[in-house]
Amino acid sequence: MMKGKINLLEKFNLFNEPWSPKVINELNNYQFKIAWFEGEFIWHKHDETDEAFLVIEGEITIKLEEKDITLKSGELFVVPKGILHKPVAPIKSKVLIIEPKGVTNTENTSDPMYSPNDDWI
Amino acid sequence: MMKGKINLLEKFNLFNEPWSPKVINELNNYQFKIAWFEGEFIWHKHDETDEAFLVIEGEITIKLEEKDITLKSGELFVVPKGILHKPVAPIKSKVLIIEPKGVTNTENTSDPMYSPNDDWI
Repeated sequence: MMKGKINLLEKFNLFNEPWSPKVINELNNYQFKIAWFEGEFIWHKHDETDEAFLVIEGEITIKLEEKDITLKSGELFVVPKGILHKPVAPIKSKVLIIEPKGVTNTENTSDPMYSPNDDWI
Repeated sequence: MMKGKINLLEKFNLFNEPWSPKVINELNNYQFKIAWFEGEFIWHKHDETDEAFLVIEGEITIKLEEKDITLKSGELFVVPKGILHKPVAPIKSKVLIIEPKGVTNTENTSDPMYSPNDDWI
């Protein structure tokens, strides 16, 4: 199945909730997800995979145990697997996430910040 | 090894040749590559993998056998594996490519358009 082209900003206009990643496309067994970042997420890690963040608009910080990585529009950072991180955003920001299908936003699906996985928009 | 953040536009400022993808980061066994598109590339396909194109600046067209997909800044398209495609760009454009490590830009490395693989910038 071939999906058509995806306009990222049009997709962001379809929802508003922060920390609620929506899948927009797949690449083999990987997914492209868009998410609004605003305020603070929780400390967590993904033991099985790296996770890529590309800021489309705004500014976010990926807090790591030893340093903070601040990303503005057009900046990419890959959190290596197993590394604790806490995303925060001083302003409401648009972020593209790339990671394998099946990765949840929190490690524990009973966490209050857990967002349904594989939620397409 | 954790790489720092990558600013895409700063990386594009480091080279000029069209159709010459440069690796900027990795995500597990996948690579993020940036490339200048200008003029016409060749018809080709990748039998083992999908290939993602995200336009960062400019306008490109991914010609397929049955239709053309025109992408502007902020637009994403995934060419499914095995599908013949020919990228073209009416204006010099900045493109982010995501695909597994080891994928070459042409099927045949003796093609005149072949660009060295795994070329980091």
